[in-house]
Amino acid sequence: MKKIIFPSFPVLVFAILSFSNAPHEVVNSGDNDSTVVSKIFRECMANGEAYENLRGLCIAAPKRLSGSPGAQAAVEYMKNVMDKCGFDKVWLQPCMVPHWVRGNPEFGAIKYTNAKRKDHVVNVCALGGSVATPKEGLTGEIVEVQNWKQLDSLGKNGVQGKIVFYNHRWDDKKISTFAAYGETVDYRWDGAHRAEQYGAIGSMVRSCTSSIDTFPHTGTARNDSLMAKIPAVAIATKDADFLHNEIIANGKVKFILKMNCQWMPDEKSYNVIGEIIGSEHPEQVIVVGGHLDAWELGAGANDDGAGVVQSVEAIRLFKQLGIRPKHTIRCVAFMNEENGGRGGKAYADSAKVKNEKHIAAIESDAGGFTPRGFGTEMDSLKKIKIQSWRNLFLPYGVYDFDHGGGGADIGPLKTQGTPLLGLQPDGSRYFDYHHTEDDQFKNVNRRELHMGAASMAAMLFLIDKYGL
Amino acid sequence: MKKIIFPSFPVLVFAILSFSNAPHEVVNSGDNDSTVVSKIFRECMANGEAYENLRGLCIAAPKRLSGSPGAQAAVEYMKNVMDKCGFDKVWLQPCMVPHWVRGNPEFGAIKYTNAKRKDHVVNVCALGGSVATPKEGLTGEIVEVQNWKQLDSLGKNGVQGKIVFYNHRWDDKKISTFAAYGETVDYRWDGAHRAEQYGAIGSMVRSCTSSIDTFPHTGTARNDSLMAKIPAVAIATKDADFLHNEIIANGKVKFILKMNCQWMPDEKSYNVIGEIIGSEHPEQVIVVGGHLDAWELGAGANDDGAGVVQSVEAIRLFKQLGIRPKHTIRCVAFMNEENGGRGGKAYADSAKVKNEKHIAAIESDAGGFTPRGFGTEMDSLKKIKIQSWRNLFLPYGVYDFDHGGGGADIGPLKTQGTPLLGLQPDGSRYFDYHHTEDDQFKNVNRRELHMGAASMAAMLFLIDKYGL
Repeated sequence: MKKIIFPSFPVLVFAILSFSNAPHEVVNSGDNDSTVVSKIFRECMANGEAYENLRGLCIAAPKRLSGSPGAQAAVEYMKNVMDKCGFDKVWLQPCMVPHWVRGNPEFGAIKYTNAKRKDHVVNVCALGGSVATPKEGLTGEIVEVQNWKQLDSLGKNGVQGKIVFYNHRWDDKKISTFAAYGETVDYRWDGAHRAEQYGAIGSMVRSCTSSIDTFPHTGTARNDSLMAKIPAVAIATKDADFLHNEIIANGKVKFILKMNCQWMPDEKSYNVIGEIIGSEHPEQVIVVGGHLDAWELGAGANDDGAGVVQSVEAIRLFKQLGIRPKHTIRCVAFMNEENGGRGGKAYADSAKVKNEKHIAAIESDAGGFTPRGFGTEMDSLKKIKIQSWRNLFLPYGVYDFDHGGGGADIGPLKTQGTPLLGLQPDGSRYFDYHHTEDDQFKNVNRRELHMGAASMAAMLFLIDKYGL
Repeated sequence: MKKIIFPSFPVLVFAILSFSNAPHEVVNSGDNDSTVVSKIFRECMANGEAYENLRGLCIAAPKRLSGSPGAQAAVEYMKNVMDKCGFDKVWLQPCMVPHWVRGNPEFGAIKYTNAKRKDHVVNVCALGGSVATPKEGLTGEIVEVQNWKQLDSLGKNGVQGKIVFYNHRWDDKKISTFAAYGETVDYRWDGAHRAEQYGAIGSMVRSCTSSIDTFPHTGTARNDSLMAKIPAVAIATKDADFLHNEIIANGKVKFILKMNCQWMPDEKSYNVIGEIIGSEHPEQVIVVGGHLDAWELGAGANDDGAGVVQSVEAIRLFKQLGIRPKHTIRCVAFMNEENGGRGGKAYADSAKVKNEKHIAAIESDAGGFTPRGFGTEMDSLKKIKIQSWRNLFLPYGVYDFDHGGGGADIGPLKTQGTPLLGLQPDGSRYFDYHHTEDDQFKNVNRRELHMGAASMAAMLFLIDKYGL
């Protein structure tokens, strides 16, 4: 048996002191706004739980595309996290979700017309919703274009029977990475469909990122009534440059693709919801959320595990700090943002049916990076009200209330007149990881994640106190 | 022989187009300030060279503590980079620097008083300037304190013959990581000296970081006339927690330290300087710089390779964009910031001797992260002038001109009346890497680094145009 020797007095006292966590902050009824906001940030930075919750989510359910067993594990994990927070109410809100499965490892390779050259394997990933290739694969000549205009000028003659390679480069001159993404993502979304119009047999996009690296970025290709019936893949930016150079050097380049992704029947899934009931207006809701589903190449740490755990943390901080909200404050882990938006729709539909008035909805779905501000979608008087709180946020580096909007999951609430806000974190690194196998927990920084969660809690506090 | 087959016309044309870099921006004489600033950012984001220069520096001279062969390699590398930029003048400015050598791998381990327990090896690193242990190592009981008050209350009786372990935790409630660092670094700087006063035989500090990880952080212990003659080391935060728990569980814990670091005679080294000569006031200088030396555990990527390559880039952008400055603009890669500041002093001394008037000095030494603003050390009228340019920076997320100061290397210019500015990047991650083996190129993001370089160039442009 190990004998425990008690250390001498001063060592023991110092030791116990140093082992304890930082003392919790408590909000008092007389605290002014700036003091409350300060306590929210201090508590979250020192004792916040978002980071460890995210670690847990990425371990428990790293692969959680809608309809998958991972998505179900994520639902259970987040329900458990919310239960432990001691909210007034935690529940699952059902919704049917699409279920697309990537299947076995995907294969792509350059096949040289010069028979002496070995095939050059290229890391490809199917775009979400793509159909499979035939079992034996699909081989075709690559035709490279950079934009729609080039595609259209090639027309049927230039495209039929070929694989169209959209090598549209990220515009590094755009300061907003989201603006640059918005431009490149068109080719991911609509590339296969438009190539198919000209008789292409496959579609390949340069990944939507400013990073020159080896990760192909997935993401959904159009899955509406115009969904293509030809396979659609992404390749990494480095491979896109390589393929481009091979075309320059060799003229004709053939490519072989093999993948067996498929659509399954819709599955039942859930939004996970927790709330603290308002002391004065329990029927009026302020909601904050992120999305729980994620592309399954990575662990969905920044997209959007971060937003989910921040949303839970924002509500938890009220409880921890002893702030009793006047309105009901609610966090939602939305299901199926990535390839359907069914969770967001189910939530808005339910709000309508229950006649819940939503004062405001806040979304975090741009990564767990340092917060810079909030986007707003609301009438200008409400915008001015939010901007009037700017000085309360400035000490925390949150200065921009003039750019950006809400978010995809809270979007359906807009038709009910709900003012929308979107947390705007630093966008520099988001698209380095976005929809790749590198979207891992290690790329989320605790301080940055918690600064975002505290910003959301502070915004909740101000909206609850002053209305909107 | 490989036969080159020319591809068909449209493929070839599209291909060549897509291969070219983004077109360069050119500043025209009629451009207003906001256009010039926009062109600076656009050019730097699309075609900037800072990132590749940093990669090269981290490969050519990863270990470049003052006086080392690595520092000399860094001088040669940066001279070569500046030569290639086509500046009007590039030169080396000599200075004598201290030369401390870490020596062979350092060793540390917990030695349990219970003879049956195996020594538990702990990753230690000598603090810069520390003396060696005896050849056979040094063994002593650990006495843990969290602050000076606890040290003083233990006094000679509690400390003599022991190794003092400063387990001062990072204050996560501090929003500014630099403020939190400022508090913990006291123990690194003065811990050995103050422990020695009470007869300690060694000093050990918890690393100065908010990150709970396994990297010990070096950095200089006081190396002035009060330099301690007992060995001083740092241990990682995880190891500090472990050691703390071992003390709780076992009472007495002994530690063995072995290291053979040593002071060598001063070495000749250099600041590396490049400039574009002013068209109207060649004798008046605006200087921008970072420091070239770095702690040799890592590659000095964020501290401060980033600042060096940003400074070079800021000047290079003038040339690239065709902006002819009125005043001489100059970049300096300062030597010996980390453990002596001799390069900064040599630069200021030379400026005095040559009677150069410095309009302003800008430093970047807080990591290559997203820029948030500039610190200022100058009279209030000059501050107001700089703040009046805020709207020109806001589109680039640079909003804060109210906090922070200049920097250590430009500090000596202050006595000559030079207004000082310091680039203020996002501080969230800086101390995760600071002075550790993890301060590597991979932790620098191209977009973030270039946003900082462009901010510095824009500030240079405005100071050159309007004076200060």
